[in-house]
Amino acid sequence: MTTSSQAIILFAHGARDPQWAEPFAIIKKQVQAARPDAQVELAFQDFMTPTLEAAVAQAAAQGVQRVDVVPLFMAQGGHLKQDLPRMLGKLREQHPRIEIRAMAAIGDAPEVLQAISDWVLRGAAA
Amino acid sequence: MTTSSQAIILFAHGARDPQWAEPFAIIKKQVQAARPDAQVELAFQDFMTPTLEAAVAQAAAQGVQRVDVVPLFMAQGGHLKQDLPRMLGKLREQHPRIEIRAMAAIGDAPEVLQAISDWVLRGAAA
Repeated sequence: MTTSSQAIILFAHGARDPQWAEPFAIIKKQVQAARPDAQVELAFQDFMTPTLEAAVAQAAAQGVQRVDVVPLFMAQGGHLKQDLPRMLGKLREQHPRIEIRAMAAIGDAPEVLQAISDWVLRGAAA
Repeated sequence: MTTSSQAIILFAHGARDPQWAEPFAIIKKQVQAARPDAQVELAFQDFMTPTLEAAVAQAAAQGVQRVDVVPLFMAQGGHLKQDLPRMLGKLREQHPRIEIRAMAAIGDAPEVLQAISDWVLRGAAA
């Protein structure tokens, strides 16, 4: 196979400041290194590109069968509870042959919350 | 001593949706459990209360000598690079006897980024 069958799209809020994307680029690199078979991309809700729509369209054009959208948002709020499901509904209509799944927010992962707490504790003890 | 000498204020963006604060409440609980000697509080930039200003004022009223502000933001953007330093400058003027420090963004902690990448990899493999 010359193309990936799975795309992992890391979906972040975006900001005007380009530095804002740096941690997401690091996460992308780590995920890509561990999953060389998958196509790993960043996408942004606001201010930065590509949009989620553009990233999914590109993955579709490259023939993936499945897209996992991973919201790199700290927590569940309006963006993830209303905006994202609406976007995903539209994307599933546009790309009926592709399975499009969405993961939970970072704040729903106990191991990530524990890593954050440990980091807070180290910093606050210094 | 009947009061804490250190306050750890976990500073998050805030959102209209109350569910948004849940992961931050979990982090607060974990940090407080590990540091029963410190006063651990949440504060929010928008939509939720208390504000950072109110949380620092409360800690000051309770006699803490040091306040560590921990931004629970994914990355460095305008909020952390411009708004937060401005707020901290004002707070240091208002509370000259208290040492007020600010930690980096979550995205600057390699161990947190690795925990996020590991979580993405587990979810995307399922």
